Amino acid sequence: MLYDALIIGRGPAGISCAIYTVRANLKTAVIGKTNSALLKADKIENYYGFAEPVSGKKLLETGEKQAARLGAQIIEDEVVGIEKEKNFKITCTNGVYEARTVLIATGAPVIKAPVKNLEQFEGRGISYCTTCDGFFYRNKKVGVLGYTDYAVHEASELLPFTQDITLFTNAMPLNVSDNLKETLSRFRINTLKIKELYGAETLEGLTLEAGRQETLNGLFIAYGSASSISFALKMGIITDGKSIQANDRMETNIPGLFAAGDCTGIFKQVSVGVGQGAIASRQMIEIVRKMKKDG
Amino acid sequence: MLYDALIIGRGPAGISCAIYTVRANLKTAVIGKTNSALLKADKIENYYGFAEPVSGKKLLETGEKQAARLGAQIIEDEVVGIEKEKNFKITCTNGVYEARTVLIATGAPVIKAPVKNLEQFEGRGISYCTTCDGFFYRNKKVGVLGYTDYAVHEASELLPFTQDITLFTNAMPLNVSDNLKETLSRFRINTLKIKELYGAETLEGLTLEAGRQETLNGLFIAYGSASSISFALKMGIITDGKSIQANDRMETNIPGLFAAGDCTGIFKQVSVGVGQGAIASRQMIEIVRKMKKDG
Repeated sequence: MLYDALIIGRGPAGISCAIYTVRANLKTAVIGKTNSALLKADKIENYYGFAEPVSGKKLLETGEKQAARLGAQIIEDEVVGIEKEKNFKITCTNGVYEARTVLIATGAPVIKAPVKNLEQFEGRGISYCTTCDGFFYRNKKVGVLGYTDYAVHEASELLPFTQDITLFTNAMPLNVSDNLKETLSRFRINTLKIKELYGAETLEGLTLEAGRQETLNGLFIAYGSASSISFALKMGIITDGKSIQANDRMETNIPGLFAAGDCTGIFKQVSVGVGQGAIASRQMIEIVRKMKKDG
Repeated sequence: MLYDALIIGRGPAGISCAIYTVRANLKTAVIGKTNSALLKADKIENYYGFAEPVSGKKLLETGEKQAARLGAQIIEDEVVGIEKEKNFKITCTNGVYEARTVLIATGAPVIKAPVKNLEQFEGRGISYCTTCDGFFYRNKKVGVLGYTDYAVHEASELLPFTQDITLFTNAMPLNVSDNLKETLSRFRINTLKIKELYGAETLEGLTLEAGRQETLNGLFIAYGSASSISFALKMGIITDGKSIQANDRMETNIPGLFAAGDCTGIFKQVSVGVGQGAIASRQMIEIVRKMKKDG
């Protein structure tokens, strides 16, 4: 299924963009799980147009209704991968989508995996990108830190390089879709809490709370949902380490790929995300119209 | 009365900014007439958070209620002048206000005065700024094109230079506040429709529809409300001729002076204005806090 505009993230920035693209007659889908940080916001009183405070939940629901009414497709799914071929190819747990333009509106990067010494080994055994670094670990012993579909996807990306893969859940409840259960069976699973990582120059392994040590050549981080940063690393999108760098038209360095909202780190507010989503839509609409005109 | 944040314009950009500044405990006022371009918008369906279309009128009213509830002062008045001394001095029809920071959120520039040959004489007899150009017309015969408080204010700014001032309303109904009626009596008033401006190199006068000609050395344009461009000219704010140039923090080239919404010409949408207002607030809050800390 080829979409004109595929938006990753169902928060204010993503939905605002979708409202514009769909009204411009672009075939539009918004993909994401219902896990916006806004859900925790009990009372929002600084978003223009609401005389009385509104809950984040209410705002999210209303926004989706609004986009759906105008014709945008809302897809409950987790995006685990994104590639650029002729069009963009977006891999989700339950399907693969193609799109002419993509907006990343996945919110603020998820909290770092709470594992001691993680930063110390970043780039020296710790990686956030299987696509980038998998090759370095041919026939090595690797781990993937995570417990969701995203972690299973990352682990399976390593299969062409090595079969010695352990999924470390760090004692988080394993939360994997049924259709990935078979893939999951190809990895060892360690459900114990991690105490710390160890190594001299580079990562050598990890110590579990229980006391036992596991030697490792590399550990890939895929903790929680795929964040904007993980997409950025896979795609070569320029970041400042925390946020995607977008210009004043919300363009990233990759043509056709845009970013809006908290993942741009500009000012993490509903107001700002909504404005950025609208601004991004303008270029997306222009690109798609040009593509269709040029055939 | 010294305000921390004074916002000119009661549309989405201005009110969004006020919501943020007032919540940051800044003494905040929003000044303007109820004349937003949004009032003409019957159905807005591209502003995030409304499942069903909302009218511009409803949105404006709700926004003002929201800002007022949080403690912002909404002042129904027309801003006719703005100067920077130690603080900013904002002159309105009914009062003068002082402010530490100012946001210009006056919407898109008003339509050009519908007078033939106007552009031809711009800078050669036609001026948009009494403060800038009044001095060139000492003891000359000048006109002011306009019919509102703003026009009367502009005409009175010329009094130190010349007494020979005619207010040309171009057949628009004169719309002047009671407290300016006395000032108004110091000018000649011509209520006829203007056919065209004439002159060889520079403006020499205007021809009325009725056929009669009026010689003039200069004509100052103050048609309708004071627009962002008229403020820009008075203050030396950089524009591109149509819109105020603001950077990605919504700062103009004048410290403490910000711009947001349609007057920045970026993408004239409620969504965008609301986001820009929020972004501007952040710097305004920082400036005011620093001022207060430094005494």
